[in-house]
Amino acid sequence: MVLPFDILEYQKRLQAVKENMADRGIDVLLITDPANMNYLSGYDAWSFYVHQMLVILIDEPQPLWIGRYQDAGGAKVTTWIYDENVIAYPDYYVHSAVYHPMDFAAEIIRQIGQGKRRIGVEMDHYYFTGMALERLKQGLPDASFADGSLLVNQVRMVKSDQEIEYMRRAARIADLAMTQGVESVRPGVRECDTAAEIYYHLVKGTPEYGGDYPSIVPLLPTGDHTSIPHLTWTDRPFVEGSAVIIELAGCYKRYHVPLARTVAIGQPNEKMKQVAPVVLEGIQTVLDFAKPGVTCGELEEVWRHTIKKYGYEKEARLGYSVGMNYPPDWGEHTASIRKGDPTVLQPNMTFHLIPALWFDTDGIEISETFRVTDSGSERFTTYPQELVIRDHLDLSGQIS
Amino acid sequence: MVLPFDILEYQKRLQAVKENMADRGIDVLLITDPANMNYLSGYDAWSFYVHQMLVILIDEPQPLWIGRYQDAGGAKVTTWIYDENVIAYPDYYVHSAVYHPMDFAAEIIRQIGQGKRRIGVEMDHYYFTGMALERLKQGLPDASFADGSLLVNQVRMVKSDQEIEYMRRAARIADLAMTQGVESVRPGVRECDTAAEIYYHLVKGTPEYGGDYPSIVPLLPTGDHTSIPHLTWTDRPFVEGSAVIIELAGCYKRYHVPLARTVAIGQPNEKMKQVAPVVLEGIQTVLDFAKPGVTCGELEEVWRHTIKKYGYEKEARLGYSVGMNYPPDWGEHTASIRKGDPTVLQPNMTFHLIPALWFDTDGIEISETFRVTDSGSERFTTYPQELVIRDHLDLSGQIS
Repeated sequence: MVLPFDILEYQKRLQAVKENMADRGIDVLLITDPANMNYLSGYDAWSFYVHQMLVILIDEPQPLWIGRYQDAGGAKVTTWIYDENVIAYPDYYVHSAVYHPMDFAAEIIRQIGQGKRRIGVEMDHYYFTGMALERLKQGLPDASFADGSLLVNQVRMVKSDQEIEYMRRAARIADLAMTQGVESVRPGVRECDTAAEIYYHLVKGTPEYGGDYPSIVPLLPTGDHTSIPHLTWTDRPFVEGSAVIIELAGCYKRYHVPLARTVAIGQPNEKMKQVAPVVLEGIQTVLDFAKPGVTCGELEEVWRHTIKKYGYEKEARLGYSVGMNYPPDWGEHTASIRKGDPTVLQPNMTFHLIPALWFDTDGIEISETFRVTDSGSERFTTYPQELVIRDHLDLSGQIS
Repeated sequence: MVLPFDILEYQKRLQAVKENMADRGIDVLLITDPANMNYLSGYDAWSFYVHQMLVILIDEPQPLWIGRYQDAGGAKVTTWIYDENVIAYPDYYVHSAVYHPMDFAAEIIRQIGQGKRRIGVEMDHYYFTGMALERLKQGLPDASFADGSLLVNQVRMVKSDQEIEYMRRAARIADLAMTQGVESVRPGVRECDTAAEIYYHLVKGTPEYGGDYPSIVPLLPTGDHTSIPHLTWTDRPFVEGSAVIIELAGCYKRYHVPLARTVAIGQPNEKMKQVAPVVLEGIQTVLDFAKPGVTCGELEEVWRHTIKKYGYEKEARLGYSVGMNYPPDWGEHTASIRKGDPTVLQPNMTFHLIPALWFDTDGIEISETFRVTDSGSERFTTYPQELVIRDHLDLSGQIS
């Protein structure tokens, strides 16, 4: 299997992580976040439903992979780690009331002489449970523990050119899936039919390269659910005069480019006609303002002032750092585009700008994923930045 | 929005959970597992990427939902909980270095006079992080904590007739997706093309009802990756003379019926011809033996004896309790079909029996999801129980 990045890129990442470890006084970092495991080692498999980790020793060039026996083969073929650093626990540790994989991991860490060091764990990351923390502490009574949350994520924020290239491919897939998804929307078609169409194109990708699974399923709240962003599709048919918000992400080698559009089924109502231009102006203002040196907090400020002119305000954050990830999220959990966020933009940082406006019974979402360039910002996708109107009167010949 | 179950069914579930709480001496149960939240309240949204919970008070008829502000609307429309029991935290708690949603939850629990009680948390469940545990303990210094892991899952093991009906629908979708997926496999077609085909049918479902997203993506390890079960698809083309293992699940209202088949691309090699009948005989023996009163450990025993006759043995468990779930798993984490598991089969328990045999460079997976009946067992799907052979010589007219 060919690694998606040159081995030197992995080593450069690892070096940056070790510098962060040194800054935080961490000798041994236990990485349980699947995106961080992949980022440093290449490991890519749907095995994060059982406990697993990458062990980074500050004074060793190679990480250790610890996971389930049947996943060890995957660790050998998808990573640059030597086979002897792939250590597997027997299957009776899986979902057992007696044995816990973290007992096994603690034992390994002791055996390799690391049991008395300062150990960082990803305290608030997915898949690192309260029990995992307790069992590690029990198994490593002579170690001291530190919070290593976001330590790797901070390194991930600035992308390499190769990562940007993968995001460009993800963007082509996002454009394709949005085009086909929107095309399928018409009165009488079910939400699940459109979701199926979108999924088909997200996974099939282009003739040149296939798509990967996005970390969040396509979301398409419809009608009075457009005010509730995280509901998934149903099998109800679309209704003339209502709207659907499509939020999806193209994904390539686990790198995501999200894209959201609001689609009017038939002619949009007065409120949508009024709100959409405000959102579009706000997006454009933020994209125009974004450049190296500006903070995420300042991006929020220009957005706030723009929409305030029209009497609108927004409670939730406008966006977040985006890139490589696994379910349940494509965000990186570092920078948020919101009031006071001090993150200073740097070239090749990448964000999903999704300044949704939700009201009591409806909402508008139009989003762009952008890269910070040397002097400004650039969008990844090319899908028209507009309120999409699917007026079936113009499409009557095509209604199925 | 219509709830998928009668309100009486939710209340019956809640009653059973409260009995388990009483047995474990738990006064207040904080449920953070999205499947358990759904099971007791109906709550269904892709919001588990932020902290959220259902609070069960042993002496109150209504649970409390605590989650993010923008998800409160979803809690109101998808659950039977009164609107005043839906409590939302502001957006600045999301992915913040300062504020943590569990500080907010602890404050609410104190405010409602529950801060000095015995509080159960789902210690080893997805989405309950080490940090969540620590912040709850800090915020509730007068409470005592107990492990509530699997407390709800144990109630979930025996399904109601309505749940079985939903699994039957999931099974029809699984059959459909497997049929279409297998149909698409031929030399030159890429793994992602087949994965796209499968996803399309999983989501579109049937003309009568749509499909829901499965908690695990379709897995289709191919060629020498058939020995590595959890690798996801690539964009490499299928090659004549190799094999692909397709593992998928139909999903309806979050209820899963998984199904796996091994597909020979062209004529199968000698090893596959030899191993497949052994696996098939083992499956049939287990299905014939399964009935109320038998233990999961005994199921493993009959499998072991059956394959031992042919000189095979297997390290990993054969299967597990299955049903409603969210990513990253469709298993229920209670019973496993493995050596010594003491779980006694009862009518309407449901299992995914997936006795894979993996070798150094290949493997065979053929699976069945079954229900325990009053006197035996029954399969959910109807897809032929066999090694599937896609000999392109017979299909030459169809090669794209």
